[in-house]
Amino acid sequence: MASDDTSAAPSGYAPPVIDVEALAALLDGEYAGIRDLVRTNLAAHSSVLEEAERLGTDEFRERVRDIVVEMAGTGQTGMGFPTAYGGADDVGASVAAFETLAFGDLSVLVKVGVQFGLFGGAILHLGTGRHHDAYLPDLVAGRLLGCFAMTETGHGSNVQALGTVARYDAEAQEFVVTTEGDAARKDYIGNAARHAELAVVFAQLEVGGESRGVHALVVPVRSGGKVLPGIEIEDDGRKMGLNGVDNGRIRFDGVRVPREALLNRFADVTPEGAYVSSIDNPDRRFFTMLGTLVQGRVCVGGAGVSVAKVALTLAVKYGVRRRQFEASPGAGEQLLLDYGLHQRRLLPLLARTYALHFAQDVVRGQLHEVFSGHEDDPQARRRLESRAAGTKALGTWHATRTVQECREACGGAGYLAVNRFAALKADSDVFTTFEGDNHVLLQLVAKGLLTDHASEFEDLDQLGVVRYVTGLAVETVIEKASVHKLLERVRDLLPGGDEWDREAGLLDSEYHLAMLRYREEHMLAGLARRLKRGVDRKGDPGTVFSQVQDHVIALAHAHVERLVLEAFVDAFRALPDGGNKVALELLCDLFALSTIEADRAWFMEHGRLTVQRSKAISREVNDLCRKVRPLAVDLVDAWGIPSEMLRAPDLLG
Amino acid sequence: MASDDTSAAPSGYAPPVIDVEALAALLDGEYAGIRDLVRTNLAAHSSVLEEAERLGTDEFRERVRDIVVEMAGTGQTGMGFPTAYGGADDVGASVAAFETLAFGDLSVLVKVGVQFGLFGGAILHLGTGRHHDAYLPDLVAGRLLGCFAMTETGHGSNVQALGTVARYDAEAQEFVVTTEGDAARKDYIGNAARHAELAVVFAQLEVGGESRGVHALVVPVRSGGKVLPGIEIEDDGRKMGLNGVDNGRIRFDGVRVPREALLNRFADVTPEGAYVSSIDNPDRRFFTMLGTLVQGRVCVGGAGVSVAKVALTLAVKYGVRRRQFEASPGAGEQLLLDYGLHQRRLLPLLARTYALHFAQDVVRGQLHEVFSGHEDDPQARRRLESRAAGTKALGTWHATRTVQECREACGGAGYLAVNRFAALKADSDVFTTFEGDNHVLLQLVAKGLLTDHASEFEDLDQLGVVRYVTGLAVETVIEKASVHKLLERVRDLLPGGDEWDREAGLLDSEYHLAMLRYREEHMLAGLARRLKRGVDRKGDPGTVFSQVQDHVIALAHAHVERLVLEAFVDAFRALPDGGNKVALELLCDLFALSTIEADRAWFMEHGRLTVQRSKAISREVNDLCRKVRPLAVDLVDAWGIPSEMLRAPDLLG
Repeated sequence: MASDDTSAAPSGYAPPVIDVEALAALLDGEYAGIRDLVRTNLAAHSSVLEEAERLGTDEFRERVRDIVVEMAGTGQTGMGFPTAYGGADDVGASVAAFETLAFGDLSVLVKVGVQFGLFGGAILHLGTGRHHDAYLPDLVAGRLLGCFAMTETGHGSNVQALGTVARYDAEAQEFVVTTEGDAARKDYIGNAARHAELAVVFAQLEVGGESRGVHALVVPVRSGGKVLPGIEIEDDGRKMGLNGVDNGRIRFDGVRVPREALLNRFADVTPEGAYVSSIDNPDRRFFTMLGTLVQGRVCVGGAGVSVAKVALTLAVKYGVRRRQFEASPGAGEQLLLDYGLHQRRLLPLLARTYALHFAQDVVRGQLHEVFSGHEDDPQARRRLESRAAGTKALGTWHATRTVQECREACGGAGYLAVNRFAALKADSDVFTTFEGDNHVLLQLVAKGLLTDHASEFEDLDQLGVVRYVTGLAVETVIEKASVHKLLERVRDLLPGGDEWDREAGLLDSEYHLAMLRYREEHMLAGLARRLKRGVDRKGDPGTVFSQVQDHVIALAHAHVERLVLEAFVDAFRALPDGGNKVALELLCDLFALSTIEADRAWFMEHGRLTVQRSKAISREVNDLCRKVRPLAVDLVDAWGIPSEMLRAPDLLG
Repeated sequence: MASDDTSAAPSGYAPPVIDVEALAALLDGEYAGIRDLVRTNLAAHSSVLEEAERLGTDEFRERVRDIVVEMAGTGQTGMGFPTAYGGADDVGASVAAFETLAFGDLSVLVKVGVQFGLFGGAILHLGTGRHHDAYLPDLVAGRLLGCFAMTETGHGSNVQALGTVARYDAEAQEFVVTTEGDAARKDYIGNAARHAELAVVFAQLEVGGESRGVHALVVPVRSGGKVLPGIEIEDDGRKMGLNGVDNGRIRFDGVRVPREALLNRFADVTPEGAYVSSIDNPDRRFFTMLGTLVQGRVCVGGAGVSVAKVALTLAVKYGVRRRQFEASPGAGEQLLLDYGLHQRRLLPLLARTYALHFAQDVVRGQLHEVFSGHEDDPQARRRLESRAAGTKALGTWHATRTVQECREACGGAGYLAVNRFAALKADSDVFTTFEGDNHVLLQLVAKGLLTDHASEFEDLDQLGVVRYVTGLAVETVIEKASVHKLLERVRDLLPGGDEWDREAGLLDSEYHLAMLRYREEHMLAGLARRLKRGVDRKGDPGTVFSQVQDHVIALAHAHVERLVLEAFVDAFRALPDGGNKVALELLCDLFALSTIEADRAWFMEHGRLTVQRSKAISREVNDLCRKVRPLAVDLVDAWGIPSEMLRAPDLLG
């Protein structure tokens, strides 16, 4: 199928032939059915792409609401809920549906996420039977819309410091919800400005004058479209993108809800006003509650990968159509994608998109296992949370970067709204900071590595981690850290000792894996040493942490990239011999080597890369780009983006 | 004035005290007067920031047109035109006005650029007295709006290959302008969809059946608001941003204009149909014509720097206001900008913004000298064109990157339209690809380096450059290249020989300069060698060029960064001793070391950086960030952005 111009491929090199249908089936995996349903729904509502530009804010919000409700009617959005309430009891399918939906208009996507993921997820996971029975049937069907009121104007990432208060009035057996000060105003809340009838409100629970930390309650905010007394809702107004989602601010002025409004799966208040919980430690209770909402991060990370797919499909198809400048006299103008520079700009991003796709398969699988109860222990939950945080961060940054590079690679045409990049860029921009700011998430990942996800540390904040690490010998930290086992494996695999990194073939996946494992382990040990040394010298953990923060981020990044590479290697190795396997191995090599190349300064600084080898890697990346070039169109076609979503008449003709 | 929290500065370190007013005066320089006029105009029309969101496309376009015309009435937009036509004969002032205007709504900016820079500039520089007399008075006053019809759907960067044809009909003494095929349709033309009455049309001139290459003619496209016969104008529709500019597509169907419509400064057609030109070589004639339009690139590069200033001002001010997480027990939540990571994200960008500001001063100065005729020889013109291309590329990429980082650093609030980032991001995005695609521009820079801007090569396309370079011995290329002289200087300055880079102080500007000069010279020699070797081996220059294209870009990038550093060093060295000098030197160190750090892999690969020294540089960058932290607010205040333009109620309170 590799049909277009291959003139720039190395001479004498025969590119593999890709079976696009088989590759598409591999990528869709076990969720091909639900993905195809979503594709059908996307095509049916494809006019929304154009309506996003044409309609005013109010009209567009109504249109998006209607589409979300119609999609709910097909079962697409409820896959993760129990069958008894109209769902399909299939968490993995619900994530796969969300990923596929991200090929389309992102306001529709985010509204689905707010309604079924955040609002529905909170009712399902933090509530109990009484809440499920009362809300889930209508919620799943899209008849009852709600919002997830966590973030406040003054508090985004630091949820434990929220300012909204819910005081128990034992006499009335009610909670009184109050916004204490401007900073405690709920803000950026999707569905709040217009459509939500219910809100899941996160507030500091006060029982008998004692503060019990952040808990969630169901608070009605509208009835028949009218805002209820004691509640004040302000519109967040126009945003950079996602203007089909009605974000708003909510203030509560002594709003009373019955005792049963408390989502009481992990903690409850008796009618008499006694606070009871199955989890004694308040920090652990808090993180357990938040942990049940991990699906949102898995979904957003996957959506980021889908956004990158759309952008790359447009840019690759434009690059094999658009000509500019004569490259050889009399040969006519050359296709953009036959320029070495253009390949360098797009193809490593294509390789990384595949890598992140397979990494997303893994984290979706883990989520499914944990939430289906197949493998649900505290350690597995913590590993899942860490993995979800890491792939969300890398997937969404990748989306932002890829959309930008692809837009520029399409020049002026890429700037016209009709060619999709405008919406793609504006709508996906917030992915890097919502559902957890990426930098905060990576610190969460690093914390997990430093404490080996040990149960006794799950409730530590960053200061706790510093105190913990600095209380141990460095060796103990490393020993405790999971990657220690990896180092052993590296040594086993490459018994040549310190020379392994000079002798191994540049296209050997074992070499790539060993490099990324080494980096991670070395960074972890270095970070532990730095924390310890800093506290020994200065004593103030806050300052120490601030000063090593770039190392914290680097470690987490290195860890997640290692996981991503492992996922990609596992995926192509599992394939039967043939063109698809050869193609994916090429692509995996390109991902691995361009990843090592991007951080080659670190590898040189740490004795894992000679100057000669570093330069050889850069040459190899260029060669791999030329080899991937003739496969590029097949590789993007295999993602199966409905043609209606490639709304780019000027780019694709 | 360094008043806010300095707790994160190194202990015992006393930060310099900045005199903000004096620093602002330094930055405004000789153009303080016109800059203040623009600031006043920006404040007077500040409602446009909110109207950009609220108004529909049609209304907003009219509103932007009105503002542009009103601003023209103050003299702000005509500074570069001759006094006789209502201007001030001051090219430098006209660029300074444009740079300052970029603090405001960018549709207004781009409409000004289209009308007075592109359209007005073409009439002024390509036309002669008859055109000046006929059009400039109304044009400068904003009574006559026009457009600049160069780019076509099929041809953006490769202007020589345009498809529109202007055939001379000697009998009628007219040119007949025709769009030959869809690819030749003029596209993305600002002012075309709605307001332009005249168009400067770039077309292949055919005289007596002979093609004479691309020339420009004045073609009326509207009269009294109605599109004229033979002309078809289509609206480009909504764009990612800049929706106050009416971009459109134009088709010409045998449109007749008189012989005098030809902008005949460099070439003319006699009534009898003889083609005459003062420049014999057609390529050189073409590049001479294009070269007169260099001001547009100088303006856009400067606008990019201003956009970065707005973004950084918002993010820095938010960072000293917003708190998140407790850093030390009981200390309350910490200010974002006291986090090491937050400093790392923002402060090197702040330093680079200052560096680019001073580099912009230099290129604006060169432009002024050349166009005021003080120093106008072909070599000076070519150096100016190269420098303008380079600073435009780096300035606009810097804007895109800075806006993105600052938006993320402001979290969800940064995503609300009311807080300026939405418009800033969407509107400035196209800067990287209009007025010359940045990648194409950097290839132009590299071409200049490879040929030493020698006059005999000004007309070479990329293939010509390859053929030229490969026809010479490598040594000759290096000798011809201007940077060779720099190498000599480096050796003179640091007679310690090969060890200079190990012994010099990390905070010595001479060391920084030497490093960037070495990188540039080495890359130039390497590129020349690669080109030669490639052609010796394979023979096809097109393929060879494609394969070294990443080296071409890297060389140009290194060259421009060296120029930028030189500009910054010269600027702070010229200051009297005192707090401002100390502060700018700190900032220059941060720019230089973070630039070296970003490319430290290259320096290690080429023996200019030991592993120890590389790590020391990273530590030093962190230290410098901490030292710049207490100066950050003063440093952004000195840019003098009108407070009305910092429209960010949620960020700045």
